[in-house]
Amino acid sequence: MSVTRVFTSDNCTPVSEPILAAINAANVGMAPSYGLDDQTAQLERVTSELFETEVKIFPVVTGTAANALALSQIAPPYGGIYCHEAAHIMVDEAGAPEFFAGGAKLIGFPSLDGKITPQQIKGAVDYAREMGVHHVSPSAVSLSQATEWGAVYGLSEVAALCDVAHQHRLPVHMDGARFANALAHLDCSPADATWRQGIDVMSLGATKNGALCAEAVIFFNNALTRDFEQRRKRAGHLWSKSRFLSVQLLAYFEGGLWLTNARHANAMAASLSRGLARIREVSLLRPPEANELFVILPEPWVKTLETEGFHFYRWGTPRSDGVLIRLVTSFAAQAEDIEDLLTAVERAASEV
Amino acid sequence: MSVTRVFTSDNCTPVSEPILAAINAANVGMAPSYGLDDQTAQLERVTSELFETEVKIFPVVTGTAANALALSQIAPPYGGIYCHEAAHIMVDEAGAPEFFAGGAKLIGFPSLDGKITPQQIKGAVDYAREMGVHHVSPSAVSLSQATEWGAVYGLSEVAALCDVAHQHRLPVHMDGARFANALAHLDCSPADATWRQGIDVMSLGATKNGALCAEAVIFFNNALTRDFEQRRKRAGHLWSKSRFLSVQLLAYFEGGLWLTNARHANAMAASLSRGLARIREVSLLRPPEANELFVILPEPWVKTLETEGFHFYRWGTPRSDGVLIRLVTSFAAQAEDIEDLLTAVERAASEV
Amino acid sequence: MSVTRVFTSDNCTPVSEPILAAINAANVGMAPSYGLDDQTAQLERVTSELFETEVKIFPVVTGTAANALALSQIAPPYGGIYCHEAAHIMVDEAGAPEFFAGGAKLIGFPSLDGKITPQQIKGAVDYAREMGVHHVSPSAVSLSQATEWGAVYGLSEVAALCDVAHQHRLPVHMDGARFANALAHLDCSPADATWRQGIDVMSLGATKNGALCAEAVIFFNNALTRDFEQRRKRAGHLWSKSRFLSVQLLAYFEGGLWLTNARHANAMAASLSRGLARIREVSLLRPPEANELFVILPEPWVKTLETEGFHFYRWGTPRSDGVLIRLVTSFAAQAEDIEDLLTAVERAASEV
Amino acid sequence: MSVTRVFTSDNCTPVSEPILAAINAANVGMAPSYGLDDQTAQLERVTSELFETEVKIFPVVTGTAANALALSQIAPPYGGIYCHEAAHIMVDEAGAPEFFAGGAKLIGFPSLDGKITPQQIKGAVDYAREMGVHHVSPSAVSLSQATEWGAVYGLSEVAALCDVAHQHRLPVHMDGARFANALAHLDCSPADATWRQGIDVMSLGATKNGALCAEAVIFFNNALTRDFEQRRKRAGHLWSKSRFLSVQLLAYFEGGLWLTNARHANAMAASLSRGLARIREVSLLRPPEANELFVILPEPWVKTLETEGFHFYRWGTPRSDGVLIRLVTSFAAQAEDIEDLLTAVERAASEV
Repeated sequence: MSVTRVFTSDNCTPVSEPILAAINAANVGMAPSYGLDDQTAQLERVTSELFETEVKIFPVVTGTAANALALSQIAPPYGGIYCHEAAHIMVDEAGAPEFFAGGAKLIGFPSLDGKITPQQIKGAVDYAREMGVHHVSPSAVSLSQATEWGAVYGLSEVAALCDVAHQHRLPVHMDGARFANALAHLDCSPADATWRQGIDVMSLGATKNGALCAEAVIFFNNALTRDFEQRRKRAGHLWSKSRFLSVQLLAYFEGGLWLTNARHANAMAASLSRGLARIREVSLLRPPEANELFVILPEPWVKTLETEGFHFYRWGTPRSDGVLIRLVTSFAAQAEDIEDLLTAVERAASEV
Repeated sequence: MSVTRVFTSDNCTPVSEPILAAINAANVGMAPSYGLDDQTAQLERVTSELFETEVKIFPVVTGTAANALALSQIAPPYGGIYCHEAAHIMVDEAGAPEFFAGGAKLIGFPSLDGKITPQQIKGAVDYAREMGVHHVSPSAVSLSQATEWGAVYGLSEVAALCDVAHQHRLPVHMDGARFANALAHLDCSPADATWRQGIDVMSLGATKNGALCAEAVIFFNNALTRDFEQRRKRAGHLWSKSRFLSVQLLAYFEGGLWLTNARHANAMAASLSRGLARIREVSLLRPPEANELFVILPEPWVKTLETEGFHFYRWGTPRSDGVLIRLVTSFAAQAEDIEDLLTAVERAASEV
Repeated sequence: MSVTRVFTSDNCTPVSEPILAAINAANVGMAPSYGLDDQTAQLERVTSELFETEVKIFPVVTGTAANALALSQIAPPYGGIYCHEAAHIMVDEAGAPEFFAGGAKLIGFPSLDGKITPQQIKGAVDYAREMGVHHVSPSAVSLSQATEWGAVYGLSEVAALCDVAHQHRLPVHMDGARFANALAHLDCSPADATWRQGIDVMSLGATKNGALCAEAVIFFNNALTRDFEQRRKRAGHLWSKSRFLSVQLLAYFEGGLWLTNARHANAMAASLSRGLARIREVSLLRPPEANELFVILPEPWVKTLETEGFHFYRWGTPRSDGVLIRLVTSFAAQAEDIEDLLTAVERAASEV
Repeated sequence: MSVTRVFTSDNCTPVSEPILAAINAANVGMAPSYGLDDQTAQLERVTSELFETEVKIFPVVTGTAANALALSQIAPPYGGIYCHEAAHIMVDEAGAPEFFAGGAKLIGFPSLDGKITPQQIKGAVDYAREMGVHHVSPSAVSLSQATEWGAVYGLSEVAALCDVAHQHRLPVHMDGARFANALAHLDCSPADATWRQGIDVMSLGATKNGALCAEAVIFFNNALTRDFEQRRKRAGHLWSKSRFLSVQLLAYFEGGLWLTNARHANAMAASLSRGLARIREVSLLRPPEANELFVILPEPWVKTLETEGFHFYRWGTPRSDGVLIRLVTSFAAQAEDIEDLLTAVERAASEV
């Protein structure tokens, strides 16, 4: 794969230099294993400061693990978990949430931008209550911030979802695989973006935004953490050399690297969006709020781009007005990469 | 934790330099995610050459994940898995095998050195067949090489276990968390140590012997690999940036690093063993075959060693003839560390 | 609950007299337990004759158990099972299929009559193949005959579903909780209604149609039965006194009782349907094909009926053109019950 | 199978007449399904009176279901459940407890009479605490009353087990598959035999002692019942026509039928025991306390008995002093059956 022309996903990126440096720096001598090392303790303190509340943080290596572990902790095996019908946990994790939660059921709601609504939650809970013992028990809500369709929930939207969930005693999980990108867009504090609106537990992604392999489950609600350590262990997600996982997250937060990287990725998306908007016959599903763009192009243009070595996904179900493609930018994207793509689209446009 | 005086476990070690170098070297540009990168493909080729047969290799980050995934692949949820009663899968993995295998049951056999016998397998299968539908179905055998009690199965022992297992149509798994140490002791080829004796699938450990975080499930029996990729994914063990996992294993094999490291660890254990054997009132459970020693010392000596900052585990159930401790050496151990400990024991001995 | 005026469900019925008589007749002396009795052996022979092929039949006590066990047998824990979005397995079994199948995922398709289509299956499989390891593996199809919306698949419809499923190597399960009602409607042989169209395994219901507690999993495809006995046992569904379960099914088939009962239930539904169709402002979703009617009435009428002691469910989501209610008839319904209800509706109509 | 000469198990018995009569009597008209019927409500009242405390009772059809459901309710998926190594839940339920409890681990203790001790529990908990996150979490204790080796715990033994369990916050489950036999032996109130000694939840067996198919989970500790209904449903163990299950248990308790039946079974065992004790070369493992005898006979005698059509199990592992057989008596046994067997043994003895 070429270094440039990759818009497939931000998970194709290399490791952000400060994070790799931290891994190297940590390679000194023996250390207690299984998370009893100094850096892991430090990570809990640093994250608590960053989020302005005492959190529990459990690093793991994939977003799938973070999501599935978090959900298994807040929903019983006979529970129902409400989410978007296109949520990562619903369609992209090979059934991991169902596996970890012992058979709990994900119930997906539709919408165009990947957001779910308080009305959808209320409707589903009402239905379940009416069905009684014959239906899975309403147990948890999961929302993705940013969503799988590139949108970012406003703070009041998050608060409204948490309110209705909590009214029905459902804890709320945030899938923050691209939380830094959302946070950069919201331009608020991590605390405001999460627990101050009612989020109980989140999956914090770092891999797409620069880590080698670091995601984390962060609990804002201490009542929910009981035996979580045990769950992580029995999922094979407790590292013996945990310090090499913790230092990645320390470096990710250090000096605001996570926001620097995310702002850059978002800016690249915005730049790409502006450029595309100027080309006739190109339409965007919506203006990018994070680092993902969904663009409709004529089929021949898409073929041309593919032939020229641009990497991206054709997205969603077939449509009559062209081909929908997803373009993802990242911390590693360069202004020239964006220009390169825009030039190619313009060329395709002019050739028709 | 001090750099020296750590005999707790080889999982407290740092990263072996060539492996860290390989991680650094891999940090160039974008790459396909989820194991579609070049290095992961290369790893399969290299491992196949090393084992002199076409293998499938699936890297993961912990031995618990490797073991539990492998077992879930070869035993159904209603199956019984035969192993040693002190096997890592039985007592040290927080129920991960039961979790991954959907409730399969581990059935442990006793012995002093951690080895199981063909007779034990046969007896258990006969019992199960007699019990019929009321008992779990005999499904798989798992042996640890080296064992949790520091012993190494001879090749003919492995062959005999595989024979009886296969007679009853049970696939055989080898937990090779310390396979390199066993291999160094056996001084044979990887192929001879595994599939040539009948092993169907193994968990290969690298973390204790120098990796940052690299273990792998290796299948010698292609009939058993169906959908394994899917299992790994839904356990949250498919990395997006897989190349950083694969290059660790490539570096581990490169130039025989794994054996160099293991031989050093074993030599340190042998040296320690020889030194301890010379001290009166010290008894060893058995001569070390890999890198673990089990030593019985008078209680006051143990306390003295602990006070002086030596780290190790008191092991097993209380006994009348002293305190049993486990001492583990590693690739990172230095001759001075061994001398240091021997001197301390001698001092304790002379003080009494 | 009064003997009459119950249109809630056919599961409120008593036991059909010949079935209770068979239970009484079986109460003589000791018998081998756990299905090794004579009657259970006889049941397999009788069912094989009835279905004109060698079947394996496994009686259980609930339809939920039959469905969940059958699905767990044909779909792996990481599998996707395709069904209607309102299928009993999807919304009425409290997550039993997910539980039994170790976390497999049910994927529901929409339609107005509860039927799924070959196109829906093909679309879902194509999507899954494209998603690869990130999505659950296409594993099985389940259709309900009759459907939860009272419709009956035609034979060619069943064949077309099985064809597309088998093209993608997905076994097909039929939820036959009301199979006798469907069969009575189709007026064909049990063989024609099932395996001759490609059905691999079915859940056969008898409880709603007269048994005390008898459902069964019937395999038409012997390759799928391996260790099923073990699954049933570990779900707590292997009776010690199995003969009392088997004789219910023997009596159910004996002399065509199942069809006699089902034809009566269907006739009662048809009669009710004809009567209701004559009343203005009453609309039926569709003509009844089995023993369930879905009727839209003005809200005040529904209240009146409820006040007068008629039992039935308000069904589905609120609508503007009245209230949708479900009316279920059964083998135990009497012509007077139908008249009674029709009279009440006519009275309500005239009062407005 | 002949009516007589069956000492295999009390689960080969027919239905006790009053119980079958109750089933017949309940077959009048329609009734609310899924446990909302009058008889099920009555059962909860009757059981509460009988146990002199407010209980929750959940009927199911097998002891395996009762045990596995109860354990899944009190132990998390990552939990350890302590029991006897020969407990029914450990060896006779095909892994049902592990299945229902999502992979929880049963840890068995040895003893000759099937009883476990407070010291064993304490030792196991101490070990687990020391192992921390690497071991399953101590979660529950299960004891069998009577035990699988025919012994009955004294009340103070039960109290001592519950005390140590509760000190470590482990709820205690009693597998009462033969509880009536134990109660008849103890000659105390049901309350004294259970919750007054600290039992939190029990599986109450009735099938072996006269029911057609009726077992029940009874909770004495209301804090443990949350969502249990949901668990039963999703295991396929919620009957639609629940009244036919509830009336069995009502008849079982009515007029003390359960104790009448159990006393008879115990008396038959005692009679058999006395008779056997008089025959030279016959040895009993221990005097029978409930309705099971374990007898050692010379191998040729055993063969002779088998040839003459007596049914029983050879039990346990081979031994040098003869063949151990298990003889089970029941409510349906007749004095002549006992005489018949004694005569046959005496004949075998005289023939040698």
